[in-house]
Amino acid sequence: MILDGKKIAAEIRAELREQIEALRAQGQRVPKLAIVIVGNNPASETYVANKIKACAEVGIEAVRIAYTSDITEQTLLTEIHRLNNDETIDGFIVQLPLPEHIRESVILSAIDYRKDVDGLTPENIGRTVQGMPSIISATPRGIRELLARYQIATAGKHVVVIGRSNIVGKPMAILLMQRAYLSLPNISAASFGDATVTICHSKTQDLAAICRTADIIIVAAGSPGLLTADMVREGAVIIDVGINRVEDISSPHGYKLVGDVDFENVSKKAAYITPVPGGVGPMTIVSLLQNTMQAYTSKQNKSL
Amino acid sequence: MILDGKKIAAEIRAELREQIEALRAQGQRVPKLAIVIVGNNPASETYVANKIKACAEVGIEAVRIAYTSDITEQTLLTEIHRLNNDETIDGFIVQLPLPEHIRESVILSAIDYRKDVDGLTPENIGRTVQGMPSIISATPRGIRELLARYQIATAGKHVVVIGRSNIVGKPMAILLMQRAYLSLPNISAASFGDATVTICHSKTQDLAAICRTADIIIVAAGSPGLLTADMVREGAVIIDVGINRVEDISSPHGYKLVGDVDFENVSKKAAYITPVPGGVGPMTIVSLLQNTMQAYTSKQNKSL
Repeated sequence: MILDGKKIAAEIRAELREQIEALRAQGQRVPKLAIVIVGNNPASETYVANKIKACAEVGIEAVRIAYTSDITEQTLLTEIHRLNNDETIDGFIVQLPLPEHIRESVILSAIDYRKDVDGLTPENIGRTVQGMPSIISATPRGIRELLARYQIATAGKHVVVIGRSNIVGKPMAILLMQRAYLSLPNISAASFGDATVTICHSKTQDLAAICRTADIIIVAAGSPGLLTADMVREGAVIIDVGINRVEDISSPHGYKLVGDVDFENVSKKAAYITPVPGGVGPMTIVSLLQNTMQAYTSKQNKSL
Repeated sequence: MILDGKKIAAEIRAELREQIEALRAQGQRVPKLAIVIVGNNPASETYVANKIKACAEVGIEAVRIAYTSDITEQTLLTEIHRLNNDETIDGFIVQLPLPEHIRESVILSAIDYRKDVDGLTPENIGRTVQGMPSIISATPRGIRELLARYQIATAGKHVVVIGRSNIVGKPMAILLMQRAYLSLPNISAASFGDATVTICHSKTQDLAAICRTADIIIVAAGSPGLLTADMVREGAVIIDVGINRVEDISSPHGYKLVGDVDFENVSKKAAYITPVPGGVGPMTIVSLLQNTMQAYTSKQNKSL
């Protein structure tokens, strides 16, 4: 069965739109997101434009704050502190990458974790590890939501995570190993967490044997076709985070997008599987909107 | 072979003593640790006294700051901020548990991570996850050091961690999964990290089967005799973090200390194993001293 991220993301957007319309109808302020962009990287411009469009669709106010690439680290830090203290801004993100003369870790660490809607500050990650209220980064949050909406419980399951990036693999593994009673906003039906988690990566020996023991496999390795059918047991749940461009002369662009999973063959054995595109991708985008809503709400009820 | 934590800890104390004597000989300030204790819990008093004694042995200056149990959370927070800003204090710890009217998470989160020599602030944990310079909590740091001093490499190995506490299981798993090029101070010989890590806990199904696939097992479950010989494969490395009191009428105290491992039988199959007592315990105490030294050094060279 296909885990339809596109459909679920649309449902979540509809829910958010309704909540924000209700706020407006009550005469309340709506959530507001600021996006800081430095320089004129075309890919970054596209991402930012898509995020602003996604905000508009649900009624979140979005503001784009642009700097030229010669901005100093100190000036950008001052801007971060201004945004931390601006009562009208609920959350903000700094679009990556930054120019080479600016240290990303210094900038990200300076963001108030309660406004860190990308969930990338050490404070937010550490709070997640310790089971405290926190903002989760977009892709892990999106995968959690997708599994929950399909009522796929993780408790007691063996979940194999392939890849150990700061934005997907590590936070995903951390969320899965948490005690399940720490259930979080917007997770309704299935319990999340309480999984036995194995984290694999480029140094892992005999990845295939480990994968064959998994109930759920989450692949975020950036390697097309990495997960093949012989590595998957009958009835497993497969989450494909990969987005890779591979040559395709039949396409007008000359390429097509594929994940890290050999979809054609793995889908015959899997109980559930995400497609690429249309699986994890749309969930990631909608997670940013949910995080902004969470930051807005937590400001009222001090839940962060 | 026995992993002799007592012996290694004595070696590390001797190294620290030498370093601190050299500082003193050069007319420099020595490292200074403050220990905050609230109320008069007898166990806490003993722990604090032992920590002060350990500091004295290596030449670290230690100061005990005691409050009665009726101190308010706000007053304790003010004290934390004072210690954060006191240039003469390199690191400090707040002895747990705190009285019920004080929220531990609020107090711990207020500690400047550069002085957090217990490594328990979300900021330090998050920095560890992201591979940034950080202070590691005492038990995981001690286990890392013990393995390194016995030249037991973890790269490419399958490590099973049993237990998911905030102070042992979770930070241990995080350290093991990191890229090994992020080697840290005082780790000399063996590379640490780059392991394939499985984290198990009370909700894990078929723990025995998972353990049998492990090259290294780290048990921190607080359950005497949990790991039995049938769960261990020939030649595995066994790290026992458990410290449990069990009745022993032949002892003058009426009890003896045992770990989470059936030592008598598991030791026959293991290549390396830690005893209880004398394994992980002494390494945990010495880690606090190393963390204080790290906080002192990082203040000079801004390495944190």
